[in-house]
Amino acid sequence: MNIEKEHFRTIWPDASCKQVSVIDQTQLPFKVAIVDVISFEMMVHAIKTMQVRGAPLIGVAAAYGMALAMLADDSDENLTLAATLLVKARPTAVNLAWAVNRMTTLLQPKAPAQRNVAAWREAGQMAEEDVLQNQLIGQHGLAMIKAAYNNKPFNILTHCNAGWLATVDYGTALAPVFAAHDAGLNVHVWVDETRPRNQGASLTAWELAQHGIPHTVISDNAGGHLMQQGLVDMVIVGADRVTGNGDVCNKIGTYLKALAAKDNHVPFYVAVPSPTIDWDILAKDIEIENRHEDEMVYMTGLSQDNTIASVRVIAEGSKAINPAFDVTPATLVTGIITEAGVFSPAELRNLVVNKI
Amino acid sequence: MNIEKEHFRTIWPDASCKQVSVIDQTQLPFKVAIVDVISFEMMVHAIKTMQVRGAPLIGVAAAYGMALAMLADDSDENLTLAATLLVKARPTAVNLAWAVNRMTTLLQPKAPAQRNVAAWREAGQMAEEDVLQNQLIGQHGLAMIKAAYNNKPFNILTHCNAGWLATVDYGTALAPVFAAHDAGLNVHVWVDETRPRNQGASLTAWELAQHGIPHTVISDNAGGHLMQQGLVDMVIVGADRVTGNGDVCNKIGTYLKALAAKDNHVPFYVAVPSPTIDWDILAKDIEIENRHEDEMVYMTGLSQDNTIASVRVIAEGSKAINPAFDVTPATLVTGIITEAGVFSPAELRNLVVNKI
Repeated sequence: MNIEKEHFRTIWPDASCKQVSVIDQTQLPFKVAIVDVISFEMMVHAIKTMQVRGAPLIGVAAAYGMALAMLADDSDENLTLAATLLVKARPTAVNLAWAVNRMTTLLQPKAPAQRNVAAWREAGQMAEEDVLQNQLIGQHGLAMIKAAYNNKPFNILTHCNAGWLATVDYGTALAPVFAAHDAGLNVHVWVDETRPRNQGASLTAWELAQHGIPHTVISDNAGGHLMQQGLVDMVIVGADRVTGNGDVCNKIGTYLKALAAKDNHVPFYVAVPSPTIDWDILAKDIEIENRHEDEMVYMTGLSQDNTIASVRVIAEGSKAINPAFDVTPATLVTGIITEAGVFSPAELRNLVVNKI
Repeated sequence: MNIEKEHFRTIWPDASCKQVSVIDQTQLPFKVAIVDVISFEMMVHAIKTMQVRGAPLIGVAAAYGMALAMLADDSDENLTLAATLLVKARPTAVNLAWAVNRMTTLLQPKAPAQRNVAAWREAGQMAEEDVLQNQLIGQHGLAMIKAAYNNKPFNILTHCNAGWLATVDYGTALAPVFAAHDAGLNVHVWVDETRPRNQGASLTAWELAQHGIPHTVISDNAGGHLMQQGLVDMVIVGADRVTGNGDVCNKIGTYLKALAAKDNHVPFYVAVPSPTIDWDILAKDIEIENRHEDEMVYMTGLSQDNTIASVRVIAEGSKAINPAFDVTPATLVTGIITEAGVFSPAELRNLVVNKI
């Protein structure tokens, strides 16, 4: 998508396959900073610190991480080590493990000398697949919005960021929003702030502003009230892992919005490419990442002198915990929007993954 | 309650009945600042800017506001004007209108020269009544916690601040927590941060720390997940207005926690003194205050140089809205803890207000 009318992806390799550039998402919305990731270690750091985040994007970032590892040392030992370190970098989104597994399965049988070239080619292929999957999600979602549209402003609520910044391009939950806006529909987005990392306020709002889509940031507390007032026509969120039963692991707080949607008869959709579906796992077995309490204790933003600064918002003497995800049971989910179409949770296992 | 072992109330008149002191709650938890409110206009400002906040406290603050008005000008015109301006200062909590109405009913029939003395006496009486009501709420809540207690750490989740800072002393939702801790029970409190004003992180956590009660701050998004994990034994919140039918208007986000409590079979209690009950209104007719979007756009805390500073967390180009309250329907409420005992919503109209 565009930043000030120039097209960007969130991640791209240089022409010589020696480094990868990413948009540093911890600087947004106040600064568009590009980081040149020149080593495997830098990529692990970028994933852990959420310079790159979003389930589909960290999958592709991990694939490029494997490529950077093979560039430095194409041995069996390093292949195993790189895979292990990447999978541990963030535990909840399945795309990361899926991508590492795909790379390992490809690279392991190859002679070491062949691995570097193969790794960069495969990572590039995975990036292209992500883009295509998200475009298809956008089209399936657009059809769904058109079916519900009644020429009044159509209010979509989203939580966290599942826009193009969470993917290589186009986004998951926001792909239908971009498509609907581009098709001339009058869509307006309620953007959950999404504490504690504020991905809604920092990333989703910025994406929508860049694309000229009407939107309003709300506290995470406000969505239920807006639904009670009839001001939400549809909820669309992304996910970090969807089980084969249709249970949805996504950013902490998603479950609360799903409860409110059910209570107010608002359709609740989850937009994911198929690599986000973990067919065999049960919801209770998903590892929920606990992140550092400092993400609760400090709040970062633009200070009065236009520098990025942090302020402490919890006094010493009080501690905080920071679980990053929750699980929304399938019973609260209206449908799952994939590249292969929209499925109810009960029908999800009918999804035949389109091989692109 | 105590601040560093010295007893404070949130509001108190000077001995000569010429001014009122309040704790400036916008400075907490980083600074304990006392503001001397020397005029009616200063009291309206203190209520509007939330230097004093919390339904019971703004009721008593409004009563003292009427007294300050009578001190300056005890005419019929000023009595009417003061009442009008105070009621408009904040629309949602019923205690403010209740207190102004009680003062007006008392003062209107009196000769102007008698009003000043009567006003200060009545405001003082209302402050004492609030303290007693909250002590009784604490005892009724303690009995309820004891009945559910099983010698394991007992986890109570609360939203916003309904502690002693929201009242003259003792608090509503936190009164049972203080009582349980003082009775030797092992209670731990999950403190919702409570965006956008952060009353949980700033005020509730600070109160609990001052009293030595174990507590953990969580994002407003996390409560549902904790309930799913079996980590919440009870929810207790305050309220700004409870209808005779038992619908509960409280800080935005309360409704989402009530939905999660219901979904996870966690008892959901609301602690209020009887002046917070508005017997005749229907939930749909309660005015929900919309506060300024800057409360969403800027976040205030302690900067690295130990001064209070604000950072912008939403970029220019995105707007925000800030509804301050929502309504939790009575169907989600287990019980309402009042000074006269604990009532189910259906039994609430049986409450016989104890005249203290």
